[in-house]
Formats: sequence, structure tokens, C-alpha cells
Amino acid sequence: MALIIQKFGGTSVTDADRIREVADHIHRCKQRGDQIVLVISAMGKETDELLTLAAAVSTTQPGRERDMLITTGERKACALVCMALHDMNIPADSFTGSQAGFVTDTNHGNAKILKINPNRIQAALNADRVPVVAGSQGVSTANDVTFLGRGGSDTTAVALASSLKADACELYTDVSGVFTTDPRMCSNARKLTNISFDELLEMTAVGCPKPAMRSVEVAQNYGVKLHIRSAFTWEQGTWVGKEEASMEQPIIRSVIPDTSEAKITVNRVADRPGVAAALFRELANAGVNVDMIVQNASADGITDISFTVPETDVKLAHEITQKLATSIGATNVTADPEIARISLIGAGMKSHPGVAATMFETLSNNQINIEMISTSPIRISCIIRQCDAVAATQALHDAFELAQ
Amino acid sequence: MALIIQKFGGTSVTDADRIREVADHIHRCKQRGDQIVLVISAMGKETDELLTLAAAVSTTQPGRERDMLITTGERKACALVCMALHDMNIPADSFTGSQAGFVTDTNHGNAKILKINPNRIQAALNADRVPVVAGSQGVSTANDVTFLGRGGSDTTAVALASSLKADACELYTDVSGVFTTDPRMCSNARKLTNISFDELLEMTAVGCPKPAMRSVEVAQNYGVKLHIRSAFTWEQGTWVGKEEASMEQPIIRSVIPDTSEAKITVNRVADRPGVAAALFRELANAGVNVDMIVQNASADGITDISFTVPETDVKLAHEITQKLATSIGATNVTADPEIARISLIGAGMKSHPGVAATMFETLSNNQINIEMISTSPIRISCIIRQCDAVAATQALHDAFELAQ
Repeated sequence: MALIIQKFGGTSVTDADRIREVADHIHRCKQRGDQIVLVISAMGKETDELLTLAAAVSTTQPGRERDMLITTGERKACALVCMALHDMNIPADSFTGSQAGFVTDTNHGNAKILKINPNRIQAALNADRVPVVAGSQGVSTANDVTFLGRGGSDTTAVALASSLKADACELYTDVSGVFTTDPRMCSNARKLTNISFDELLEMTAVGCPKPAMRSVEVAQNYGVKLHIRSAFTWEQGTWVGKEEASMEQPIIRSVIPDTSEAKITVNRVADRPGVAAALFRELANAGVNVDMIVQNASADGITDISFTVPETDVKLAHEITQKLATSIGATNVTADPEIARISLIGAGMKSHPGVAATMFETLSNNQINIEMISTSPIRISCIIRQCDAVAATQALHDAFELAQ
Repeated sequence: MALIIQKFGGTSVTDADRIREVADHIHRCKQRGDQIVLVISAMGKETDELLTLAAAVSTTQPGRERDMLITTGERKACALVCMALHDMNIPADSFTGSQAGFVTDTNHGNAKILKINPNRIQAALNADRVPVVAGSQGVSTANDVTFLGRGGSDTTAVALASSLKADACELYTDVSGVFTTDPRMCSNARKLTNISFDELLEMTAVGCPKPAMRSVEVAQNYGVKLHIRSAFTWEQGTWVGKEEASMEQPIIRSVIPDTSEAKITVNRVADRPGVAAALFRELANAGVNVDMIVQNASADGITDISFTVPETDVKLAHEITQKLATSIGATNVTADPEIARISLIGAGMKSHPGVAATMFETLSNNQINIEMISTSPIRISCIIRQCDAVAATQALHDAFELAQ
């Protein structure tokens, strides 16, 4: 008999029919003899709707009240799931974050878990009842309701899995697992059977939309193996865990395209200490998320700096950089949104030289120019023209035989 | 400086605009120097919507989960009101039933308040902050969220007013006060300046829709004076309190029509002990709400019994009564939905004989036949034909000079 934590995201519980489907699934799980703890997100787009309502009512939206508002979504979904389980003669109890024993700091909107007292959850399990926990919430040390932030239901699930020493933590979503690439760009994108935390973290950092990066980080920190699977097909998904050195690994796991960024280039800055610091301190103060930075040391003391930011930040980043241009001796600042970042991810590249060469040759063979290059031990990213994104993705997917 | 509890019902906080209107009003109150505690109901029809959703998901709907679900409505409204107040630089904090110190029994869906610890509310008031309390909820002795029942926000407001020894308890709604009769039936219906608990209780018992009977009972039990007023016109409303013997009273306060009932008549039952008991025990076991019962002692040992029930119960009541008919010796059972009950209410009738006579004469002068009569010390009700309801209401309103 296994203890499994199962978390269901918004699309999985979006309406009454979906909630009853989930209850059916739990019924099948119980028949197999497993102990289940459920973690439930708000239904469908409810969190967005609550935030829209908040914005219509108020511009200040103090954190304590925002958390009180947002957390009603998970509680509502939670109670409904319990009701559906009761209909199937499965005794189930809802647990708010507080009742589930989640104590957090007072950082409203992004609260950190300080400790978990899983007593009530454990008591329910011992009584052969299914605990249904409202995701992404807790109670602060000041006795206020707190929200763990967007994607926080995954955190709740992982933290519970760790605290209860569960055998598995399953994150149910609207995709059937983690794929070798975006299936909308490559028809032969293949679902991965397993992947390491580090590889998946790199993938989510460079544009893979599911799962939330935070949930992978949390799972890695807590040492909890994840199973990413579909709440619609119920098929086996992708297992995520520590890197297993003994397993024969493919060199590359996936190629991830991302068209959501823009590039800013500062031409001919003086190549001296302090230039980069001044620029990126200004950008950081303004809350601009800088992603890739590329600068080459130069022979003549003059260099270019290029960096990428989310498209939503490019206007602000451009203004800041232009203001600074003169004082850092730059001649010109340009902003270019028509870029795409293509990333190869794979722990195997640490032990297999030649991956970068193969990547560059493949792009070159397809007449795709590389504008920036950035690497980590298990990832190579190239900035190319946005119009080349599909062709680049397909070519690399084939070149590294990811469909096999 | 007065301490005022202000409760806002669903229509008063139905959307973002209304919520900001309420915040404006609180701003004006604060400028007058009053201390305010707010009690907020769920927005608009949200409670109904949540219950509809529950019914779509589940037929069993265990009480604990129903309460968790329903109470999200008040919490949501509460948080939004706080945000609107913050926008106006009025420091405000939301309080769940639990945080407001409401400890209840475990009777989910209709929980009774066992005690109130108003410490956090008082601390907020001392810090010159506006506490905004989610109505109709508490935490049970088993540490579960509980719902006090429909109309429970009024209970929350009254209980707080008593606990905090407030100067006033204002129930804001979508009518501007308590009227001498249904304004839809009489164009010269007049708003009452004040009324006693007992009179208002009788009125709500016989069909006056606002306020909820329960809130009047609770106010009377706690000895808290109520002010029923409009959240749209903000004008002075109707004060409700103990009967003041010293005040010069009108004899009659109001005439209340009610067309929502049906009559069942059992003909020629044996006039012996046990007959009525058998019939009404069966009806009670089936959950049928019996309102008026009329039976006359007879000379020949045979009598008729008539009683009224809500139209929604008439089919069931008719079936039950027919089943019992033979064993209680009745010859016939008829059901008649085309009735109306017209009630006169006034504490003054205790000391003014002739009210009944005037009522009967007025109806007779208007060719309106009286089918059943039932009285209490401060109320006289007559059952008449439904088609005569408007005429009867207007005639009695005039006869007792209620427009003055």
C-alpha cells in the first residue's frame, strides 16, 4: 500500500464535471489500496478572476486582504471535491492551509513555509479518510491567512509529500508529461519517461511552460520525486527526480524554444570595470528581469554588451539603458523584440563534448544565424531571429534524434 | 463618539461599484468621528450560486464541506471591502468568523454561537482600524469552519453589537426601512420611524420579507437596538427596539399581506382527543411547516379542522392528510392554494378593544369574506380569497389611517 500525494491544477477541476472525473479517479486509486492525500488548486481561472475583481475594487490591495481573497478559490474547490468523493462513499475532509498545519512567515502573497504540523492530516489517513488540502495557503505566525504565491499548490503538495514521507507526489495537469520539445512546433515531440530535477529546472527557466519552476525547485530541495501527468487521459507521465548517474542517458533531453524575450544591445561601451555594474544595478533597481547577458572582452578597450529581457520589460529597459548610455560611454542603444531563444538541455552534455558543435552546425546548415550564445553545464542557448524559431526547433529535434 | 456595528447585505455589496459606494459611506462615518465595525455578507447572489454548484457536484453534500464552501462568499466580500477602504486611507482588517472570536457548536449549516471572544476586534478598534467581519460564520469546538445559516450575517452583527456594547447596530439592505404595508400593494405605504421587536417579529412571521425573522429574534434576545436602513439612499430608516410603554403608540403599526400559503381542510373529524395530535405529528415528521390552525369545538362531536402551509408544502401535506383521513374519521380532505392571509400588527391592540371589530367590518364593507381567523396579543390574521388581497390591504391601510 502506497501513500500518494495527488495535486490537481486549475484546469483539472474547472467545473462540476471535471470534479466528478477526479472523484472517479480517486475511487480507482482507493480500489488499488493506496492511501491518497489530495491537494487542490482553485477552479479554472478563478484566481485570475478574483485578482481582476480586486483591481476593480482597489488600487492599493493590501497583502493581508489579497491573501484572504485569493485563498477562497482553493477552499471552494477543496470543499466541492470532498462532496464529490462523499457521493462515491469515500469519506473525505477538506483542510485549509491552517488546518493542514502549514505555518508560514508573514510575507503576504509569497509566503514561505516555516513548518508543517501534519497531525490532522495523519489522523484522517489513519481513520481511512481522504484529506483534501487547499493548495497554496497557510496561516502566518501572526495568525493571518497567507497565500504561497502562484503555483503554490505544487509547493503544498511537495511539502506534504516530504512531511508525510509519501511514496510519490503526482502533479496532475492538462499536459500528459514533459516533452522533448513544444508539440505545437514539432509533430514528433516525444513524452519523456523521466528527467532529472536540474534538467527540468533548466527547461522551465528557458521557456518550458509546465511545470512551474518553483515546484521543481521545491521538489528538489525537499528531495521529493515528482510524477507529472494528465488529469484528462490519466496515462503514465514523466517522472522527475535526482540525476541517476548509473542510468544510460540520452545526451540531450529536449530542445526548448522561447519567443517571449527581446534583446537590447549597447554599442561600444568602454571596456572598463564598473560599466556593467552601473547598467545592471539600474535595471535591477527598476525590477527589470535580465536573462542572458553577453559581453566579449576586447582588444581595443571598446566592446558591445547585449542582454535579453521579457518583452513586457523591453520598453522600460530600453529607456533606462538609453539614459545611462552617455555616462558609460556608449554610442548607441538598440532594442530588438524579434528574437527567439533556442535551448538544448541535457545532463549528458557534461560528459559528451561536441554538443555545441553539433548545435551550431545544424543551425548553420539551415541558414540560421546565431546572434548570442549562453551556456550552463547542462544547457546551451542561442539567440536567433524569431522567424527562424520553428525551423531551428525542428532541425535540432531531428539532429539530436529526440523523436526516438 | 459612538461605536456602531454596520452590516451590509448581499445586494449592498453586489459588485465593485457598490463596494466602493460602501467605502465612501464609511469614510463619511469616520469623518463624523464614529468607531465602526463592519459585517459583510456574500456578494449578490453568490451564496445561491455556490449552492447550485454544490448541487451540480454532489447529492450528499456533507455539512462540514458545505460550510467550508458557503463561507468563502463572505470572506471574499470582506477582503474586497477592506481593499476599498484602504484606497481611501482608512486602515481596515478583514476577520473571518474564527478570527473575530466566534466559537460555535458543530451543527453545520445552522451553527449556534457558544461564545464570542472579541479581543482581536477590540484591538483593531483601539488601534483606530476598521474591523471588517465576514458574516454568518464561526469556528466550531471541533476546529471546523461553520456557517450560521441563511440570514446569519445579521446574527453576527447583533452578537458583536452586544459583545462590544455598541451604541447601535445598523442593518443595511435594499429597502429604506420597515413599512406600514407592502409598497407594491399600497402606494401610500409609509416608512415607520420605529417599531418594537415583538411587532416586527409578528410582521416577519406573517409575510413581511425584511428583515429576516431570525435577526429580529437575535436582537431581542441580546437586547440590541436595530436600525434598518438603505445602502442605496443612505437615509434614516426604522429603529427597532423594546416596546416603550410610555410612548404614545399608534394602535396598529402595519397590515401585512401574504399570498404564499395554501389551506387544507379536513371535514367532519371526530371531535375527540388525539385526532389533532395524530394529524399534526404526521405532518411534523414529514417536515411540513404548519402555520395557522383553526378548529372549533362542536356541539355534536363532529368538527372541521383547517390549517395553512406554505404553497411549496401543500402537495405533501395533502397526501399525508388524505392518508390519515379514514383513521381519524374524516369524510373529506381539500387543498386550496387560492388564499391570502392579511394580518394587522400593533402592540396598541392590547389596550384598545375594537380592533378586530374594525377589521372585520372593513372587510365586510368591501365584500370580502373571512374564511379563517387567528390571533395573538398583538396580531390579528384573516384568511381571505387571494384575489381579494390587494383590495383588503388597501382598505385596512386606509381604515387604520396608516398613511398618516
